[in-house]
Amino acid sequence: MSNAAKNMYPSMNGESITYRVAIPPPQPFLKSLKNIIKKTLFPDDPMLRQFKNQPPARKLILALQYIFPILEWGPRYSFEFLKSDLIAGITIASLAIPQGISYAKLANLPPILGLYSSFVPPLVYAIMGSSRDLAVGTVAVASLLTASMLGREVNASENPTLYLHLAFTATFFAGVFQAALGIVRLGFIVDFLSHATIVGFMAGAATVVCLQQLKGILGLDHFTHETDIVSVMRSVFTQTHQWRWESAVLGCCFLFYLLLARFFSKKKPWLFWISAMAPLTSVILGSLLVYLTHAEKHGVQVIGHLKKGLNPPSVANLAFESSYLSTTIKTGTVTGVIALAEGIAVGRSFAMFKNYHIDGNKEMIAFGMMNIVGSCTSCYLTTGPFSRSAVNFNAGCKTAASNIVMAFTVMLTLLFLTPLFHYTPIVVLASIIIAAMLGLIDYEAAIHLWQVDKFDFFVCISAYVGVVFGSVEIGLVIAVALSLLRVLLFVARPRTLVLGNIPDTKIYRNVNQYPNTKNVPGVLILEIDAPIYFANSSYLRERLSRWIDEEEDKLKSSGESSLQYIILDMSAVGNIDTSGISMLQEFKKNIDRRGLKLALANPGEEVMKKLNKAKVIETIGQEWIFLTVGEAVGACNFMLHTFNPLPATDETDKWSNNV
Amino acid sequence: MSNAAKNMYPSMNGESITYRVAIPPPQPFLKSLKNIIKKTLFPDDPMLRQFKNQPPARKLILALQYIFPILEWGPRYSFEFLKSDLIAGITIASLAIPQGISYAKLANLPPILGLYSSFVPPLVYAIMGSSRDLAVGTVAVASLLTASMLGREVNASENPTLYLHLAFTATFFAGVFQAALGIVRLGFIVDFLSHATIVGFMAGAATVVCLQQLKGILGLDHFTHETDIVSVMRSVFTQTHQWRWESAVLGCCFLFYLLLARFFSKKKPWLFWISAMAPLTSVILGSLLVYLTHAEKHGVQVIGHLKKGLNPPSVANLAFESSYLSTTIKTGTVTGVIALAEGIAVGRSFAMFKNYHIDGNKEMIAFGMMNIVGSCTSCYLTTGPFSRSAVNFNAGCKTAASNIVMAFTVMLTLLFLTPLFHYTPIVVLASIIIAAMLGLIDYEAAIHLWQVDKFDFFVCISAYVGVVFGSVEIGLVIAVALSLLRVLLFVARPRTLVLGNIPDTKIYRNVNQYPNTKNVPGVLILEIDAPIYFANSSYLRERLSRWIDEEEDKLKSSGESSLQYIILDMSAVGNIDTSGISMLQEFKKNIDRRGLKLALANPGEEVMKKLNKAKVIETIGQEWIFLTVGEAVGACNFMLHTFNPLPATDETDKWSNNV
Repeated sequence: MSNAAKNMYPSMNGESITYRVAIPPPQPFLKSLKNIIKKTLFPDDPMLRQFKNQPPARKLILALQYIFPILEWGPRYSFEFLKSDLIAGITIASLAIPQGISYAKLANLPPILGLYSSFVPPLVYAIMGSSRDLAVGTVAVASLLTASMLGREVNASENPTLYLHLAFTATFFAGVFQAALGIVRLGFIVDFLSHATIVGFMAGAATVVCLQQLKGILGLDHFTHETDIVSVMRSVFTQTHQWRWESAVLGCCFLFYLLLARFFSKKKPWLFWISAMAPLTSVILGSLLVYLTHAEKHGVQVIGHLKKGLNPPSVANLAFESSYLSTTIKTGTVTGVIALAEGIAVGRSFAMFKNYHIDGNKEMIAFGMMNIVGSCTSCYLTTGPFSRSAVNFNAGCKTAASNIVMAFTVMLTLLFLTPLFHYTPIVVLASIIIAAMLGLIDYEAAIHLWQVDKFDFFVCISAYVGVVFGSVEIGLVIAVALSLLRVLLFVARPRTLVLGNIPDTKIYRNVNQYPNTKNVPGVLILEIDAPIYFANSSYLRERLSRWIDEEEDKLKSSGESSLQYIILDMSAVGNIDTSGISMLQEFKKNIDRRGLKLALANPGEEVMKKLNKAKVIETIGQEWIFLTVGEAVGACNFMLHTFNPLPATDETDKWSNNV
Repeated sequence: MSNAAKNMYPSMNGESITYRVAIPPPQPFLKSLKNIIKKTLFPDDPMLRQFKNQPPARKLILALQYIFPILEWGPRYSFEFLKSDLIAGITIASLAIPQGISYAKLANLPPILGLYSSFVPPLVYAIMGSSRDLAVGTVAVASLLTASMLGREVNASENPTLYLHLAFTATFFAGVFQAALGIVRLGFIVDFLSHATIVGFMAGAATVVCLQQLKGILGLDHFTHETDIVSVMRSVFTQTHQWRWESAVLGCCFLFYLLLARFFSKKKPWLFWISAMAPLTSVILGSLLVYLTHAEKHGVQVIGHLKKGLNPPSVANLAFESSYLSTTIKTGTVTGVIALAEGIAVGRSFAMFKNYHIDGNKEMIAFGMMNIVGSCTSCYLTTGPFSRSAVNFNAGCKTAASNIVMAFTVMLTLLFLTPLFHYTPIVVLASIIIAAMLGLIDYEAAIHLWQVDKFDFFVCISAYVGVVFGSVEIGLVIAVALSLLRVLLFVARPRTLVLGNIPDTKIYRNVNQYPNTKNVPGVLILEIDAPIYFANSSYLRERLSRWIDEEEDKLKSSGESSLQYIILDMSAVGNIDTSGISMLQEFKKNIDRRGLKLALANPGEEVMKKLNKAKVIETIGQEWIFLTVGEAVGACNFMLHTFNPLPATDETDKWSNNV
């Protein structure tokens, strides 16, 4: 065997071994379909793994434990756990009571609904949920969305009963939608809300919620039903004569107190309880102040009468009449998705932190059931809010039992303590909401986005501007559309890179990234950086041709030897469709017409399978498909030197040594 | 330097040279923004290349030549070219006249519009278009779409004048939309109609158009305005008593003749003129037959009076009243996109074949101008139909002058020959349409799709079923949505591969594709096959953890040495966003918590840039980022052997030799 022939298929040991790119054996259609569906819908393969090789009785227990995780952790529950969960549960209850009342006001619902919603749903979640750290409750953004979407149809102050019934119905649909997503395992649509979208959206929603609190802080009676900043500002500044200074002063004092408490808790994490208790302290202090000074007669609005007793049933109140059906379904779907996104993200973060596993689709079913049951027991939309779960985590919760403790604390409040809230000033609730919302405006994350990825920053700002100047839905739609556009553009405009040889190695890399790479004379090496799909096949056809044109122009002007080989590095081409295959075939024809030769390097499994089925491998020739770029270059050089023998200059010597 | 240390950074020559993954220098924001916009919107970089380093006068000439390509090829026009273009032009005119009349009938427009539309638009295209082979004319699918979309608003037989004006207006909007797409360089949206979509859509549209011809063939007076197969069949079979056998017999005879002509032309390409002339021959034969037998009095419908004379101006007829504005804009946009897709694809195919370049965006401006001018001169929507362009190409056209020849032939017809079409039977036109449409049902392409790519086949069939059972728009929307879903799923569910060592090399490849690869003890090598974006970061986080779990389980059960290193091959990761970066950071934390070590291999330019900005490189440690998987494995083995010295078995010996 000649030295040159050895070069063609070099090996580390100097022996000539031919490694060919394998063509995967064809798979039966149904089997590959099953694989694709399994990967798409059951990415975490939850049931199948633990169910393997188990007797039927054990399988039943496992199935019940899968559906009701309490059966799994309940029997192992210890007194140690109870101590931790008791402390955590009481802590989050002290947060849940004032926040619940505040957010119910934000949703234009009776304040007592906030307490109802902190009683039944946490119990349901404790039975069905798989997160150990999630604390269930209502959230500001979903409350605001409910108010703004239902408010368009029914005025909450003119027709409170109908409005209430629509809110229950929307909650019911949100639950059904959440559970359905989980059951058909389409939970991954939540992933399409990117981090950047959520940062911008949350900050925008927080801004909007804060603006809404101006009503409470300034003690205004009339207020716009719009949420955008222009309408709110117009509403505020057209009624300057209605502003109540007593209310505003009280509000600012409590806001200052709440922010101070958060500041200390942030400085020293073990002081978390200062921040966690601050809202309840504010409510108690505010109520005492009003009770003692009779401030309710001097322009400070109070909550007023709260009915004693547990959640009344509300199944009969679900309103499925056709006239409001589309509104409630739409509200339920949108708020359901938003609530899911927050709840799932919170659950996953803490699970990642404590290194246990959460099945997103299963969580969705738990959230869905919690809202379906909630809608039948006078609750509105609940999820796992980040702030409350963080308090739960910091307070040292061990299992979902902390939710049960919270629920019982709220139950006691409902049974015995509601009259105490009669004098609670609304302005204190507004302060609590503002303090909570300011924590959601994550400007540091926005700065980080700007530094790392300008496009993500643009998505984030679009979501913010859309929410603040348009509406919550507009902001969300803009941000999701932009994020999807980015994914599509990545595929529609893939990068094509020219590769060069890293001196004294067989490695070929992007010449832009590694400026010390060297061209291989007579050979142009191109890499495609994305799957070849219909969306980019026209672009790639033209772009690849242009690379060749440019290379030929360059060689002509510098008087070097002309181009003879084109090597396409397919390592990063994950897949190819029929449009892409047509493109490759046309590209091959085009290259033949120019008198050049095409070689492929390292096509992957899927690509080889399709090229084989479409008989492109025969067109290109299997001997022109190589395992690495280095081997392809070796073969090209071998051919160049065999059929166009050049004088043995340093250059060619180097080549025969290296390859 | 010890032998082990040499292994850490092996080189081909046995010398120890460290090649590090380069961190690209940060680019100014505006520069990278400019690059992205340029790549997205000016992928073919059309103007800038030829304009470089030219004096201003030359630049002006080049700009004019760019806008009006006739200035470029006109001066070089020769008698040889004229001879070829004359033959081609007359050939396509003989096809254009009967087809134009037929398609105008299909659009429920006066037949004479078909002739008008073959006069002005080809002249505009000859001046502004850059394809040498494209023949301009009306197309069946766009005609049908016009009829069905406008027909929903206005009944063409009850209010023909309004209908006509709306058709002009829709054409105007189609032109404006096409030109606008070209000017803002968004031409790439046409690429989102994949090959599979077009095959299914065209076949569906052809089926629908054929079904519509049952009206003409059976000589029915009343017919449904719906296009779906159910409505049409109901319409046909509820009026069996109205069927006219004379008409049906005549239609079948001509259809047989036309199909026979096409059959011969297909067998022998030089017989193309038989097929090209067949429609005109049919029209002449049919008209003579009716004239001689007075068949128009026995149930054979004829075209009737056609006005002599050239296109009347129709600027004054454009209807911009608000009541029909949304309909005309919608019709214009949809038909405009469909027409563009066909025209651009045809132009590109022939350009690729003759190896010249076409600027898609520039073509769009030419199409747009052609339709804007057309809508002001009594023409309706025109594009570059495939069938007519193929005839033009086969007839040996050299430049766009063949369009001018066709236009003048049609002009002569308009001026002198229109009375001859008085007795042309409608059933002959129906046969011509059916014959043309049957050629669009490309069942071979559908079979090819099934063999190569099942998903593409599914898209194709969905488009077909959507068009045939729903409507043309429904089919289109379904197919485009499915195609986009596939692109999104590719990113949302990327493949993660385990790599193994190909024996006796430093090459690491997918263990599924190369079954003879070997695992590296203590090291798990994973490859991610797509960019890491928000849409897949949650999935990847869980999937990567699961790979590690599974590998650890496997090692535990087989009693092998435990896992120590995870190598992520980033070669195929084209880009990463902030969600992806968070995922990597969490993955790194997770790996640290398990007591494992993470190494990256070959991250690309974009990825390194972002990892650097987000300071992830510092977290991972730059010494743990390698140029190739081989080097990463080498380093891992070096560490394994240095810090956990194993007895020198065959296994370890092999490793120190190979790496």
